[in-house]
Amino acid sequence: MEPMETTDYFESYEDLDVHKLMLQDKPRNKAYKDAIFSNKDSFKDKVVLDVGAGTGILSVFCAQAGAKTVYAVEASNIYKIAEETVKENQCENIIKVINKRIEDVVLPEKVDVVVSEWMGFYLLHEAMLDSVITARDKYLKPDGLMFPDSATLYSVPCSVPSMFEFWEDVDGVSMKHFGSKIRRKASEKPLTEVVPPEALLCDPEVVVWLDLREVTYDDIKSVKMRHVAVANKQGKYQGICLWFTCTFPSTLTEPVTLSTEPEEPFTHWKQTTIILPQSIQVEEGSPIAYDLSLSRCEENNRRYSIEVTMLDPSEVEHPEYCPCHLTKCILVRAMLEKYEKDAISNIADG
Amino acid sequence: MEPMETTDYFESYEDLDVHKLMLQDKPRNKAYKDAIFSNKDSFKDKVVLDVGAGTGILSVFCAQAGAKTVYAVEASNIYKIAEETVKENQCENIIKVINKRIEDVVLPEKVDVVVSEWMGFYLLHEAMLDSVITARDKYLKPDGLMFPDSATLYSVPCSVPSMFEFWEDVDGVSMKHFGSKIRRKASEKPLTEVVPPEALLCDPEVVVWLDLREVTYDDIKSVKMRHVAVANKQGKYQGICLWFTCTFPSTLTEPVTLSTEPEEPFTHWKQTTIILPQSIQVEEGSPIAYDLSLSRCEENNRRYSIEVTMLDPSEVEHPEYCPCHLTKCILVRAMLEKYEKDAISNIADG
Repeated sequence: MEPMETTDYFESYEDLDVHKLMLQDKPRNKAYKDAIFSNKDSFKDKVVLDVGAGTGILSVFCAQAGAKTVYAVEASNIYKIAEETVKENQCENIIKVINKRIEDVVLPEKVDVVVSEWMGFYLLHEAMLDSVITARDKYLKPDGLMFPDSATLYSVPCSVPSMFEFWEDVDGVSMKHFGSKIRRKASEKPLTEVVPPEALLCDPEVVVWLDLREVTYDDIKSVKMRHVAVANKQGKYQGICLWFTCTFPSTLTEPVTLSTEPEEPFTHWKQTTIILPQSIQVEEGSPIAYDLSLSRCEENNRRYSIEVTMLDPSEVEHPEYCPCHLTKCILVRAMLEKYEKDAISNIADG
Repeated sequence: MEPMETTDYFESYEDLDVHKLMLQDKPRNKAYKDAIFSNKDSFKDKVVLDVGAGTGILSVFCAQAGAKTVYAVEASNIYKIAEETVKENQCENIIKVINKRIEDVVLPEKVDVVVSEWMGFYLLHEAMLDSVITARDKYLKPDGLMFPDSATLYSVPCSVPSMFEFWEDVDGVSMKHFGSKIRRKASEKPLTEVVPPEALLCDPEVVVWLDLREVTYDDIKSVKMRHVAVANKQGKYQGICLWFTCTFPSTLTEPVTLSTEPEEPFTHWKQTTIILPQSIQVEEGSPIAYDLSLSRCEENNRRYSIEVTMLDPSEVEHPEYCPCHLTKCILVRAMLEKYEKDAISNIADG
């Protein structure tokens, strides 16, 4: 018997509303279509493996771009929809829908391209990347391509007024107790909500960059990163906002990127925010230090437990060139600037 | 033991996210606050009963408007939040939070005002109005006020492109089969989605108007209405959109109305749409005839089963003055206009 979480997971994808949401996500579809169509050379007469094909849309893109064969592997019952999509688009001779888990599939050949839309909330939720790694290691030719071929998770301290000050005055009524209750609840499960760009307090920093041609299961078991961010404006530090981007390989044009950052158009991934237990006032130039760790849950292998540890900025090492207002960093900056000036005048003199 | 659905119902209101959504619904809060604050005379030194008080915000509005006593009756565990809200707003001497179903409450006195935010999706979903009727009949003084005191449910034929033509071309891929699947699913449960005003094909018609001072349990057991609407533009008739308005009593100013119609700002009720099995092209002036019935489910008393029966417009009776393009109605219009002209010239001659 399957462990409970696996069965649950595949059943969740039988919910048509989930697929409706994804298919209505224009930036998602557009990124895949643009990446595939602007690299038709990589698809023309090639063999493609679509991992977690869902309703089959990406497989059809590949067929439209000229693929010879597309193996559309889908473990959930939604594969029946994929079969209909294939027929409707006259791709029966190109796309083979296979209702199996990728781990159980036996393909008759190696493939030129692995395409997959595997990204979950905060990139790693769902842990579908495991299946993509399996597919790559089992079936991708040595010089084959991954679509996408890299993914980056970002983090940035932010304000979350809807979880804090909103509750101080709800149309003239103080509801602070209710606010504290929903924050306590949010500490169990990160928020999936749109974060407006103006809520971000610092420049984003990379939590992890994954080269999808190389990444291993172990690389994504747990991700830990220490950050020393610097507030670029005054504000209330109330949460850590996470989002991701994915980039597709390109031989000819600028690579296509699918971005879920707050500045970009809405996607169904929105952003993920970890709520702090309390609000902290920061000034422009304030350093904000925190450890962020995402580690796979032991009980449910498809979930990650996310932990933020707030650190005392005066007790951690800052980047070599740090724009924060701590005396040490101001001195280092002054020194570096002096060296640079001296170096330039030496060159000029020389 | 409680029947299953009642227990489920009250537990659903223990979900903090439901209350967060309602408290963040600005038009909802504003309508109640404006109605209460612009009629302070009706609250000053009066006794109020808040039915389904939830987090307690409406009770605090009443206390702020000068109420002597507010009985805040809340059957779910969220009453604990209401108690904290009361303390936070220094209303302990005015508001008594009572953790009981209204049917089981014993109040020591009759009340001057019953206030309640009982409206569900398409007004009647949840059937909380029953409890408001109980409260009114048990406790409202003969000259007491209901806040709100009337509610109207509207219906109008509309386009729903996200359920029809969207699936004909999803970024170049035909997904009609998927579209038909989600429509079949929608036939089991109406959609709760925002309908843009331009999707409406006709002027709205009243399904039911409820005078909340008089309405009985029987009045809302089942609501049936025959409609002959007339398309005011060309378009695709794909669904029936439902929404409601509520009006509050007023002695001095224009009565306050809470409206969830598509033209008005977003509320958490959005609109409710019943999806037709297929799309029908209509022209400006086309009559659209349908029976709409909402009847309480026998299995779950808090739900309604909604049925739309499409009728042949040439076989049903049209309103006396009908702007549709059927020959009969054109003739009647011409005749009525002639009579009117004759009547005017007779008056002028006389």
